[in-house]
Amino acid sequence: MKLTDIKSPKDIQSMSIKELETLSAEIRHFLVDSISKTGGHLASNLGAVELSIALHYVFDSPNDQFIFDVGHQSYTHKILTGRADQFDTLRQHNGLSGYINYKESIHDVWESGHAGTAVSALHGILKAKQLKGESGTAIALVGDGSITSGMSFEALNLLGSDHTLKGIVILNDNNMSISKNVGALSKVLTALRGNRFFMKLRNGIAKIMPNLIARIYRRLKRAVKALFQSGNIFEELGYAYIGPIDGNDLKTVIKTLNQAKKMKKSVVIHAVTEKGKGYEIAAADDNGKFHGVSSFDKNTGAPVKTNHNGMKSFSEVISEAMIHYQKIEKTFVIMPAMLVGTKFEKFYQQFPDRLIDVGIAEEHAATMAGAMARNGVSVFLPLYATFTQRAYDQIMNDIARPDTKVIFGIDRAGFVGDDGSTHQGLFDVSIFHSMPNVVITMPYDAQEAFNLIRYGYSQTHPFVIRYPRLETHFDPANPPKFELITPTWTVFSEGDEQVWISYGPGLDLLLKAKQAIGINARILNARFIRPIDEVMLKESLELNTKVFVYEEAFGSGTLYHHILEFAMKHQFVNKIGSMSVKDVIHHGTREHNQKDAGIDLDHLIETLKTL
Amino acid sequence: MKLTDIKSPKDIQSMSIKELETLSAEIRHFLVDSISKTGGHLASNLGAVELSIALHYVFDSPNDQFIFDVGHQSYTHKILTGRADQFDTLRQHNGLSGYINYKESIHDVWESGHAGTAVSALHGILKAKQLKGESGTAIALVGDGSITSGMSFEALNLLGSDHTLKGIVILNDNNMSISKNVGALSKVLTALRGNRFFMKLRNGIAKIMPNLIARIYRRLKRAVKALFQSGNIFEELGYAYIGPIDGNDLKTVIKTLNQAKKMKKSVVIHAVTEKGKGYEIAAADDNGKFHGVSSFDKNTGAPVKTNHNGMKSFSEVISEAMIHYQKIEKTFVIMPAMLVGTKFEKFYQQFPDRLIDVGIAEEHAATMAGAMARNGVSVFLPLYATFTQRAYDQIMNDIARPDTKVIFGIDRAGFVGDDGSTHQGLFDVSIFHSMPNVVITMPYDAQEAFNLIRYGYSQTHPFVIRYPRLETHFDPANPPKFELITPTWTVFSEGDEQVWISYGPGLDLLLKAKQAIGINARILNARFIRPIDEVMLKESLELNTKVFVYEEAFGSGTLYHHILEFAMKHQFVNKIGSMSVKDVIHHGTREHNQKDAGIDLDHLIETLKTL
Repeated sequence: MKLTDIKSPKDIQSMSIKELETLSAEIRHFLVDSISKTGGHLASNLGAVELSIALHYVFDSPNDQFIFDVGHQSYTHKILTGRADQFDTLRQHNGLSGYINYKESIHDVWESGHAGTAVSALHGILKAKQLKGESGTAIALVGDGSITSGMSFEALNLLGSDHTLKGIVILNDNNMSISKNVGALSKVLTALRGNRFFMKLRNGIAKIMPNLIARIYRRLKRAVKALFQSGNIFEELGYAYIGPIDGNDLKTVIKTLNQAKKMKKSVVIHAVTEKGKGYEIAAADDNGKFHGVSSFDKNTGAPVKTNHNGMKSFSEVISEAMIHYQKIEKTFVIMPAMLVGTKFEKFYQQFPDRLIDVGIAEEHAATMAGAMARNGVSVFLPLYATFTQRAYDQIMNDIARPDTKVIFGIDRAGFVGDDGSTHQGLFDVSIFHSMPNVVITMPYDAQEAFNLIRYGYSQTHPFVIRYPRLETHFDPANPPKFELITPTWTVFSEGDEQVWISYGPGLDLLLKAKQAIGINARILNARFIRPIDEVMLKESLELNTKVFVYEEAFGSGTLYHHILEFAMKHQFVNKIGSMSVKDVIHHGTREHNQKDAGIDLDHLIETLKTL
Repeated sequence: MKLTDIKSPKDIQSMSIKELETLSAEIRHFLVDSISKTGGHLASNLGAVELSIALHYVFDSPNDQFIFDVGHQSYTHKILTGRADQFDTLRQHNGLSGYINYKESIHDVWESGHAGTAVSALHGILKAKQLKGESGTAIALVGDGSITSGMSFEALNLLGSDHTLKGIVILNDNNMSISKNVGALSKVLTALRGNRFFMKLRNGIAKIMPNLIARIYRRLKRAVKALFQSGNIFEELGYAYIGPIDGNDLKTVIKTLNQAKKMKKSVVIHAVTEKGKGYEIAAADDNGKFHGVSSFDKNTGAPVKTNHNGMKSFSEVISEAMIHYQKIEKTFVIMPAMLVGTKFEKFYQQFPDRLIDVGIAEEHAATMAGAMARNGVSVFLPLYATFTQRAYDQIMNDIARPDTKVIFGIDRAGFVGDDGSTHQGLFDVSIFHSMPNVVITMPYDAQEAFNLIRYGYSQTHPFVIRYPRLETHFDPANPPKFELITPTWTVFSEGDEQVWISYGPGLDLLLKAKQAIGINARILNARFIRPIDEVMLKESLELNTKVFVYEEAFGSGTLYHHILEFAMKHQFVNKIGSMSVKDVIHHGTREHNQKDAGIDLDHLIETLKTL
């Protein structure tokens, strides 16, 4: 059967184990081939092939609901629910989403947001089924990185105590999280993994012994286990614990799921899988480089060469700036899991004592940062813009409210492109504006990034440097110097016919629009988004021309609103137009994102022409 | 020694155990007496008297840093650090804060925000001490309600795995949380509590046996324990576990703290305490009514009678509305711990199957709500405005982004008075405005509250009803009917000289100002804060008069900004003034809060006069 011929999970339910095994091999081959062309999440999907096949073999989707934590491991599920033929459009505009997506399939029942939400969704779905008297169960597939996030614990704790509900949690444990695992629980999992011996022994014995003897054996085994090791956290939280099992052995997984299906209480299946399984180059990767990839050469694993022309990502520029800044002042980096994504590996190699990776635990990271800073340590907290959302309360109460100097590196601010609606970095400007005391900045280029780092450490407030998922000119051999700056705006392009204001990559768009329209606009670089440079703004408003503010951000409480307030307060009557994001924006390129939001260059030119 | 004579913890360090025991009795007496007059947190403080005395006896504050989770159990700490004489000003304007406060004392080293942050602060402080080579340790005091919050788990997991750091966590377990405990971990704690027998036995044996025998006995005991029960979650996370101990027995607590002080690894001390200890009426309370109290009669425990004149709190009105609404439609309430605070006890009594208390787990609550609503259940999610901050990401990704109909009851919106800066409900308007699809409303009175509940359930978006910590006219015997309304503003007071706009309690202030100044202003009730009633706003802007917007909210991205944007877009040139909160506001009455923020009636009148 060709993968593209699979129209529904029913198509695989009559297959033999042998055929399913062939199917897994075909799916692996397909995934490597397809993702090497489009980019996407590779290693996690290769690890979860058998788990996904077994789920669809043993359970009846969508009556039984499958919940994929985050959803970046759902590609096999997509194939088995009739979407193989769309993989050439993966993460492209109007193409297949890289995550679960309600619009794609009736089998996509839970559009995950961020990590750690799956067990909460499981609890909600089971409770809803119970209240409505509906049949079917629900199963959550959670990675070992997500399970340590606080929210997973909240949910495990609550579902485990509700004996009227029965849910299945599959802990997909590849001992890797996104990059590497941290925390005590990961050691617990490692210890449990060592128990595979018991699993094999029991399986062997079950084959040759009648039921009664097997039951006596199991009791005995439990007693023996208890003598030598502590119980495990899942059992303590009220779950039956099955495992560890080999999550890449189809037969074992199917048998275990059938066993779990029959149980009356909620169960955690601890499945050990190999991230990147079946593609040696990804399997051998220890650093998470094959977690999310761009298109690459299948034979070498190397990214398809694009000519960067001396360009580097802003992530790299900021991490380089932080490396160089260590000569001026020792700083300490609290990293919530995104060591590879934020390009801080090199920093960590050079200063292993100045970085702690706390895993997917943004709340902990923020409060810890506040406590360290209060106690005299220079702290740098890198966060993807979208993950800032996860620590709102801790940033508010433990950093902003007491006006504690923590420097935030807000990575992937603005559109993120192919990751789509759950990961857009559109809300951080509103978020930080809604908190007292926080300074918000965005550099235009590498030089400004270096300067803002230096400025941030020279002042006394919570300080945000946000930067886009884009490249900029940067030569590592000849990096910028740390220049002293004042908290002012700069004139990005001289002019007096109109005043256009933006920050970060919006400035280039405005410049292009200026060239296209031929209005001699003054373009201001509002590198300090907050507080406003009141002197320069006033001076510009006094030109008595039209003003326009462009923001690649969700438009509530961002720069435009505060400029309006300023102008009103100082009795300016300039017409002040704006462009910002007003809706949920799905995946595509950054350019598609801009078009979907109505803030792309064409719309910008159109709008500025008729201002 | 009189309590007011204690100037520093040093003053108690030379006392005998006997004297310390007398001291605890005095402190208890003082607390009941003092809090009965001023109001404040009672039960939690009575439970933590011995723990606090022992901390200051065994350790050396502030070189050793004490972290109080939330801080509502820190009154004894305040007494021991020289603040007994200020207790008559507790939670009053410019008086003693009800929480830890940096400005009050050098012994207040961690100004806690919300629940569950203490272990993260502990980790941060220990790491800072390590990096800076400073002496001293840190101890976190965490309640059994806070320990189940996800963030506590994140922190325990991370600190437990760092063997270069040694911290002490005191689990102050009164089996009560704020009201009652939920979740599997609470059962684990109950089981552990049962082990006091072992503790006493060991203490007894240690007295009569030499060291070696005691050690052998301990090994044996561990083995026996292991045979019959699982290990415990704290040991699994890398901590030494001591307990359970009687946390109200001073001698035991001191001995245990000395033991923990000598240990090389991080340790969890499980101290069982009696909430309300020493004041029978509070100790006998099962519902958390003595968690936070207003002034009360010491002899009866009854609140000091104030004449309510047919007034009820908005919390009560909303919960009554929800009870009555059950006749129209069954709804399901997901309650994050605040059953008593939000006045939903009566609802729960009448509909025990329609409410689940998830404890202090707002993240879980929000995602669970999203999942239930997606699966066809009518969900109501009550949250204090300040705790909305704790679920930003989950509300954003699992409710707002997919446009899922969850009805939020946002209690204590606006100033909360005596709880101060960490608990002000000033940010929810900004927060919900920063999310796509969310409708935001605020009722003026009970009738409007009922109507908005009905309207919320009749529409299809995430829907917020926010209400203040105030009373309003309400007769439970004759409650409002559910009237059908449209999503419009109403004219609160006719006029045409100016246009003044507000929502909720701001309307009364504007009316008072109108009467005081004599400007014939049209006052609009923006009960739909978002989306704006564009028809009525346009019509009012066309009066071509001055406009003024009053908001008891932090002023970023709230109604004023969106009105400015609307006016600019439609080319109105009205002068539009505003008043909102711009800074951190500390404790006092609501009126003090308003004055401190510069948005009280006097300021309002002054501003409107010179608009």
